[in-house]
Amino acid sequence: MLFLLGPIMLGLAVLMLIPCIVALQINSPDLKPFLISEAITVTVAVLLMVLRGKRRPTLRIREMFLLTNLAWLMVCGFGALPFILSHTVGSFTDAVFESVSGVTTTGATVLSGLDSLPADILLWRSIMQWIGGLGIIALGAAVLPFLRIGGMRLFKTESSDLSDKALPRTRRILTQLLLVYVALSLACFVSYWIGGMTVFDAINHAMTTVSTGGFSTHDRSIAHFDSSAIEVIAMVFMLLAAIPFMLYLPLLHGRVQPLVSDGQVRSMLLVYGSVAAMCLAWLVATEQFGPGLALREAIFGVLSIATTTGYVSADYTNWGSFAIVLFFLLTFVGGCSGSTSGGIKIFRFKIAFVMLRETMQRLLHPRATFSRSLQNQALNDEVMASVMAFALVFAVTVGIAATILAALGNDFVTSFSAAATATANVGPGIGDVIGPSQSFATLSDASKWVVCIAMLLGRLEIFTVLILLTPGFWRD
Amino acid sequence: MLFLLGPIMLGLAVLMLIPCIVALQINSPDLKPFLISEAITVTVAVLLMVLRGKRRPTLRIREMFLLTNLAWLMVCGFGALPFILSHTVGSFTDAVFESVSGVTTTGATVLSGLDSLPADILLWRSIMQWIGGLGIIALGAAVLPFLRIGGMRLFKTESSDLSDKALPRTRRILTQLLLVYVALSLACFVSYWIGGMTVFDAINHAMTTVSTGGFSTHDRSIAHFDSSAIEVIAMVFMLLAAIPFMLYLPLLHGRVQPLVSDGQVRSMLLVYGSVAAMCLAWLVATEQFGPGLALREAIFGVLSIATTTGYVSADYTNWGSFAIVLFFLLTFVGGCSGSTSGGIKIFRFKIAFVMLRETMQRLLHPRATFSRSLQNQALNDEVMASVMAFALVFAVTVGIAATILAALGNDFVTSFSAAATATANVGPGIGDVIGPSQSFATLSDASKWVVCIAMLLGRLEIFTVLILLTPGFWRD
Repeated sequence: MLFLLGPIMLGLAVLMLIPCIVALQINSPDLKPFLISEAITVTVAVLLMVLRGKRRPTLRIREMFLLTNLAWLMVCGFGALPFILSHTVGSFTDAVFESVSGVTTTGATVLSGLDSLPADILLWRSIMQWIGGLGIIALGAAVLPFLRIGGMRLFKTESSDLSDKALPRTRRILTQLLLVYVALSLACFVSYWIGGMTVFDAINHAMTTVSTGGFSTHDRSIAHFDSSAIEVIAMVFMLLAAIPFMLYLPLLHGRVQPLVSDGQVRSMLLVYGSVAAMCLAWLVATEQFGPGLALREAIFGVLSIATTTGYVSADYTNWGSFAIVLFFLLTFVGGCSGSTSGGIKIFRFKIAFVMLRETMQRLLHPRATFSRSLQNQALNDEVMASVMAFALVFAVTVGIAATILAALGNDFVTSFSAAATATANVGPGIGDVIGPSQSFATLSDASKWVVCIAMLLGRLEIFTVLILLTPGFWRD
Repeated sequence: MLFLLGPIMLGLAVLMLIPCIVALQINSPDLKPFLISEAITVTVAVLLMVLRGKRRPTLRIREMFLLTNLAWLMVCGFGALPFILSHTVGSFTDAVFESVSGVTTTGATVLSGLDSLPADILLWRSIMQWIGGLGIIALGAAVLPFLRIGGMRLFKTESSDLSDKALPRTRRILTQLLLVYVALSLACFVSYWIGGMTVFDAINHAMTTVSTGGFSTHDRSIAHFDSSAIEVIAMVFMLLAAIPFMLYLPLLHGRVQPLVSDGQVRSMLLVYGSVAAMCLAWLVATEQFGPGLALREAIFGVLSIATTTGYVSADYTNWGSFAIVLFFLLTFVGGCSGSTSGGIKIFRFKIAFVMLRETMQRLLHPRATFSRSLQNQALNDEVMASVMAFALVFAVTVGIAATILAALGNDFVTSFSAAATATANVGPGIGDVIGPSQSFATLSDASKWVVCIAMLLGRLEIFTVLILLTPGFWRD
């Protein structure tokens, strides 16, 4: 397993050089913490590279599960080092929270006064989200379909095969996905820059947009810029980041058809559009904004939460209880499979709808047989069960997390909304404590750890972690 | 279809005589409303009986669905007549709400000052819950398994067959179930009476206990009596009412085994026991009550909500947010299939658990085949899908109802809790508006109608109503 952990740690060490250089340039108080973290990370990475040996191993299912968990935990842990050592981030718990929230691309923060934080710290937060986004794309393309997590087997392609024979092909596809991710990030950066952001803000927001992470360099998030141009750019790239990145590969060969005709993307647009329309109707009916501003804020809010980015352009919890309920439910939706977004994801809702329709038809025609398909693929009972099990375990995770959070003294709304926004990797919650205008800073340490675990569970599609807790996993 | 609606209306008319007689005796201001209602109900019942003809028809699936909906709507409608005509219940909406809440055995009320209401009105509320409880037992035994609603096909027995040949047998079983229901009601009445209630209170509470309805004759519900004896009696009979009534039939032949060894009953006791233990631990840890009182209140609260009765012995929303979250989640649980309780029900959680376990096992052993069973019955994919579709549609119903309630101006907690408590047919909600110490009186008329629809949907296991809204149902 060291075979893969080594390069991942090396990548982390290379990217950690960036805030080190920035810290050096601005003579940041965090220079020492960053240099120490870099030294530790490089050491571990080199050790892993040396120890891993020459032979390319064949990974079995159990090892893949273990590796996925380890990789995520290690990136979270080593990524937290600069925060732990720095004086900028308060406590050990806060440091880990910020790192986990970054790597899982959740975007919930315990920091306030972002605007006055050193550039190196801000940049490292954004880079961690960017790493997390890249990680989830690789996971969604190569690992989760192979592991048959939550119906992801549907998206099994030639890349979801880690056998020796297929490895070169898998590696080629992963390289292409990386290129697309970098290209999208660059395009987003240039757009933000032209749109009026400083170079620094544009770099940070580009990284946290394409990863649907949502960390900002300002306490007021996107609202800080008060610019419709920047909001529109954010909308476009949040949406692009919620599309399956595999669909961008045919574009490299000039074929637009797969992207345009994809059923999941179309359903996503339909869902987002409908919810935005409802939100718009509410805002216009309650006369909170003029039609133009209402349109902009409704679409931005819906896209930000549904794609699980979590930027805030306006505090929708001030829009009345209809908006609050709408945005709470939206927390669960998510984007497409194989994108950087979290949540339950559109294809699972499509499969649930297929199942619901079939159940209804069977009520009237008990003896009929039904053939089901999604995007030209037959849906067998195993995939259906796997998707429903995912939805179930998602709900159970939110329920348990909410119960524990409540036992730790959080109120009803905060407990449920923190559990939901963490498990879906969205970011902001609702209510007076963790709402879009607040942060997670005031939660107790114990509560922050619960939120951390929920974020990790959500990001790894729950089952990837849960399977490690079964006795069957460790047997023989 | 008139074949079955006639006797149902006749039964309603007969039972409506009881409050008429009471109204006459106490010279109630509602005597006239009751007499008019009785006259209308009798007329319609006789008309239906005359029109129905002699030939016993064979009901097809579609007609069964239509009949079930019609029967429930008619009982709700005619049952509301005394409330509509009386001056005791405020508006038309309130009258319908009280009737629907009664017949669906939900127990949410819009009336306050119950202690000073005329006996006839109080009695009619209780009788309607008693009718509703009887109705759901008949539905669960003879109709829902036949219609394959939400996995109820698992409980298909010789009684779930309405073919001409099987009808006498079905009728015999339904008669036995009626006897059990009456016997349980009588036992409950005697116990309450001995426990210290007045005869009138004992009659009313017996009817609303065995139906897991939860209407009381006092604003403070069971807390009014402040008696541990009465609370224990309520606990026992709420639990007995949440057990599949079919399991009582072997008792008539002296066989205890089927009841004692039933898997669903055991799981129910395990779930209720675990939640009560958590609640007890919380109450003791937070030092709100002494251990004895904590034990009593914890078990009573859990049983009342989980069995979907909704009696209140103490306002658990004052016990801190852990208790609030716990009781909110408990709202969804419900009792056993074939009982008078609502909610998602224990056997569906068992099936979900089986599915989850299988999904986890398949992650490690993708090529293995699994045989699943529940209570010695094979669980085929159709039953699994049907159960998951039910859970899904339950969640969607609560989500949509909450969204509409929020759009109508209710706050976040009230919207979700009203939607949940109505769909699960529990009764009290949480929050400042519809909490255990409050009533549904202050909701707007529109909100009350939304709650009414949710109560009806929940009581008829949603699909029974939903199927009527599909174009396929009305085709050809």
